[in-house]
Amino acid sequence: MEREFSQLNPGYRLLLGPGPVETSPRVLRAMSGNLLGHLDHQFLDIMNDTMELLRKVFQTKNRLTLPMSGTGSAGMETVMVNLIEPGDNVIVCVKGVFGQRMRDVAERCGANVYSVEVPFGQPIDPADVRKIAKEVGDIKLIAVVHAETSTGILQPLPELSEIAKEHDALFVVDAVTSLGGVELKVDDWGIDACYSGTQKALSCPPGLSPVTMSSRAEKVIAERKTKVQSWYLDLSMIQNYWGQERVYHHTAPINMIYGLREALQIVLEEGLEARFKRHQQNSDAFVGGIEAMGLSMIAPIGYRLPTLNAVRIPENVDDLKARAYLLDKYGIEIGGGLGDFKGKAWRIGFMGESSRRNNVILLLAALADAMAVQGHRVDVGAAVEAALEVYNG
Amino acid sequence: MEREFSQLNPGYRLLLGPGPVETSPRVLRAMSGNLLGHLDHQFLDIMNDTMELLRKVFQTKNRLTLPMSGTGSAGMETVMVNLIEPGDNVIVCVKGVFGQRMRDVAERCGANVYSVEVPFGQPIDPADVRKIAKEVGDIKLIAVVHAETSTGILQPLPELSEIAKEHDALFVVDAVTSLGGVELKVDDWGIDACYSGTQKALSCPPGLSPVTMSSRAEKVIAERKTKVQSWYLDLSMIQNYWGQERVYHHTAPINMIYGLREALQIVLEEGLEARFKRHQQNSDAFVGGIEAMGLSMIAPIGYRLPTLNAVRIPENVDDLKARAYLLDKYGIEIGGGLGDFKGKAWRIGFMGESSRRNNVILLLAALADAMAVQGHRVDVGAAVEAALEVYNG
Repeated sequence: MEREFSQLNPGYRLLLGPGPVETSPRVLRAMSGNLLGHLDHQFLDIMNDTMELLRKVFQTKNRLTLPMSGTGSAGMETVMVNLIEPGDNVIVCVKGVFGQRMRDVAERCGANVYSVEVPFGQPIDPADVRKIAKEVGDIKLIAVVHAETSTGILQPLPELSEIAKEHDALFVVDAVTSLGGVELKVDDWGIDACYSGTQKALSCPPGLSPVTMSSRAEKVIAERKTKVQSWYLDLSMIQNYWGQERVYHHTAPINMIYGLREALQIVLEEGLEARFKRHQQNSDAFVGGIEAMGLSMIAPIGYRLPTLNAVRIPENVDDLKARAYLLDKYGIEIGGGLGDFKGKAWRIGFMGESSRRNNVILLLAALADAMAVQGHRVDVGAAVEAALEVYNG
Repeated sequence: MEREFSQLNPGYRLLLGPGPVETSPRVLRAMSGNLLGHLDHQFLDIMNDTMELLRKVFQTKNRLTLPMSGTGSAGMETVMVNLIEPGDNVIVCVKGVFGQRMRDVAERCGANVYSVEVPFGQPIDPADVRKIAKEVGDIKLIAVVHAETSTGILQPLPELSEIAKEHDALFVVDAVTSLGGVELKVDDWGIDACYSGTQKALSCPPGLSPVTMSSRAEKVIAERKTKVQSWYLDLSMIQNYWGQERVYHHTAPINMIYGLREALQIVLEEGLEARFKRHQQNSDAFVGGIEAMGLSMIAPIGYRLPTLNAVRIPENVDDLKARAYLLDKYGIEIGGGLGDFKGKAWRIGFMGESSRRNNVILLLAALADAMAVQGHRVDVGAAVEAALEVYNG
C-alpha cells in the first residue's frame, strides 16, 4: 500500500480574477449526483434541458446550441475548424490576447487571415473593419471578442454584425467573459457563431464550452467540401449525439454537464436582466472606488467590461508583490496583466457568485492595504464612500 | 423568477457498461474541494502530484505525462496532431471501432494512412504489420488499440513495438480501456505515445485524457516543420503550462483534476499488481458463468480483455429489449454492440469500482432473468457456481 501523497486539501481562496470564479454549492452538489451513462435516457433528458437552458442564456432559438467537451478555447477552436476551409478569407479583430488567439487558430485552419488590430486597451473601430472587408472581398467570416479578458474592453457588436451581413459573411463572437454577465443577444444581433466558457459569469467550474450556431452557420457546415480537421470537435458528428439521433461520438463529461445545467438554472432564476444589472452595479461601485483612490481603469468610458475590470497599476507599485500579499493575507486571487499589460494591469473579475457588494468593498480595502505596505498610500475611506454611493444612490 | 426546469436528480444506476463506470465517493468529494485558480501555487502542486501519479500508473519515467482537457478521444487526437505532419506515412491497426477512429483522425492530419485490418473480434497479427511496414517504408508511426472497447480484444503489444523499432517509427498505443485495469508498461514495452480516459479502469468521471510521450516523441514534436493544426491540443504550448514555466495556455478543468488526482491515489493505494489481479479474477468469474449458461465470448482465449467483456447475444434474444429490462428492473447499464457487432454483442465492463464480486454474481443472475423473460432459459445455478469456483478455487 502506497501513501506518499498527502490528502487533497486545497485551501481557502476568494476568486476575484479573470476566472475561474466562485461557484455555488448547488453546482458542486449537482456535480456529485448519481453518475449516469452517456446514452442513458435519464442523461438524454439532462442534455435536452441543458441545451434549452443554454438557448435562453444565449437569447437564441438556434437548434445547434450545446456545450463542447473542453474549456473555452475548445469552443473557439470548434467554431473555427467547423466554419473555415483552407483558403477562406477571414477577418479577425485583434485588441488583446484572445483576439490574437483567434487569429492563430484561424491560421491553423488554413484561412487567409486579415486582422484589424488596435493597441491593447482600445476597442475596435468598425470603420477599420468595413475598410478591410471592402478591400479583401469574398469574406467567409468576421470574428471578434465581445469581452476581451486581457484588457477589460467591452466591444459593441451591432455595427460589426451589419458589416458582416453587407458582405454575406458569418459573424463570429467570443463571449467567454460576457455570457451570463453582460447583455448578449445572439439572435437580435445577428451573431452566427458564438462560444463561451463555464468558469466566468456562468459561475460553474471550468471544463465545458457552450457553443451556438445559426442556421446560416449550420448550412455552411453542411456544405463543406473538406472534412473538419478536428475529429473531436467535428459538429457534423457531435450534433447527431446531442440531436434526436443520439449517435455515440465521444463520452460526454457527465458530471460537468450536471454542474452546467444547475449553473444555468441559477442564472435564469435570477433572470438575465437582474443579473446584468447586478454585474454592472458591482463594477460601477468598484470603478468608483478605484478612481477615488487615484487609480485609473485601462478601458475608456463606454467600453468598460463590468465582468472584468482592468486597473492600471501605479508606477511605484510592484505587481507581483501586491498580488502575493493579497493571496497571503486575504486569500484573494486577482489576475495580472497579459501580453502588453504584463506587470502593468490588474485584472479583477466580479462574475457570477463573485459579483457581490461584499467582495467589492473588501477588495478595495485589501488593494489599498497591499499598496500601502509598498509605500503607496491611498484614501481608503474615500474609496469605500465612492463605492457605497453607487449602491445607496 | 423562472423555475420551469425540475431539480437535477439522476436516479440510481449500476454502471457495468463500457464506461463511465462506478466512481468512489472519495473522488466526488475531491471534486468539491475549494476551487483554486489555474495559476495558484496550491494548484501547481496538485498538477505536479497528478503528473507524478500518472507516471506511476503508466509505468513510465516520461517527463511529458499529463492529463489533456478533454475526454479519451481528445487524447487520441492530441497524439495524432502532435506527431503527424502532412504527407507522413502512418500504419494504423484496425480491429474495431476505435481503430477505425484512429485511422480517421490520422487522415484528418494529412497522413498517408496504411491500415492493417482484421474482422471485428480478432486480434491483429504482427506478421501483417511487419509485411506492410516493409512494403511502405519510411514509416512515421505505428498505432494500435491495446484494449479495443468495441470488441473486448486485448492486443499483445511487445512484438508490434519491435516492428516499430525496426523501422525507426514511433509506437502509439490507445490505452483508454486498459490503463489501471490491465498490465501496461509504457517504458518496458517501448511505447512512444500513449493516451487513456478517466472513466474506465481509473474509476473517475469522464472529462480528462491522460497522455504520455517518450523523449523520442518529444523530439519529433520539437522538430516539426509545420504548426500543430490544433491550438487547443498543441503540446508544445501545453507542456509550458504543466512544466516549470507555468505559462498560461487555457484554463484547466480544476475540479476534474482534483478528481483524477484522488482516483490515481486510490489506484496506487491498491497497487497496480493487485488491481490487475482483481480485474482478471472478476472477469474470469464472469466468463466462467457466461459459458456455464451456454453463451460465448466474442474474443478468442488469450486475447480476452478483463476490463471489457464482450458476450455474443443468443440468436433468439433481442438486444434492446434485454438491455431495457436490465435498466428497468435492476437499474443496471451494460453496453450494446458497436459497428459490426450492433445488436449482436453485449459489452460488459468490470472496471475500477465496478469490478467487484457482487456485480459479477448479480449481473449473471440479472442477465439470466432478462433472457428468461424472452423465453431463453439458462441454468442460473450453474452460472453462479462456475463464477464461485473462480473465487473460491
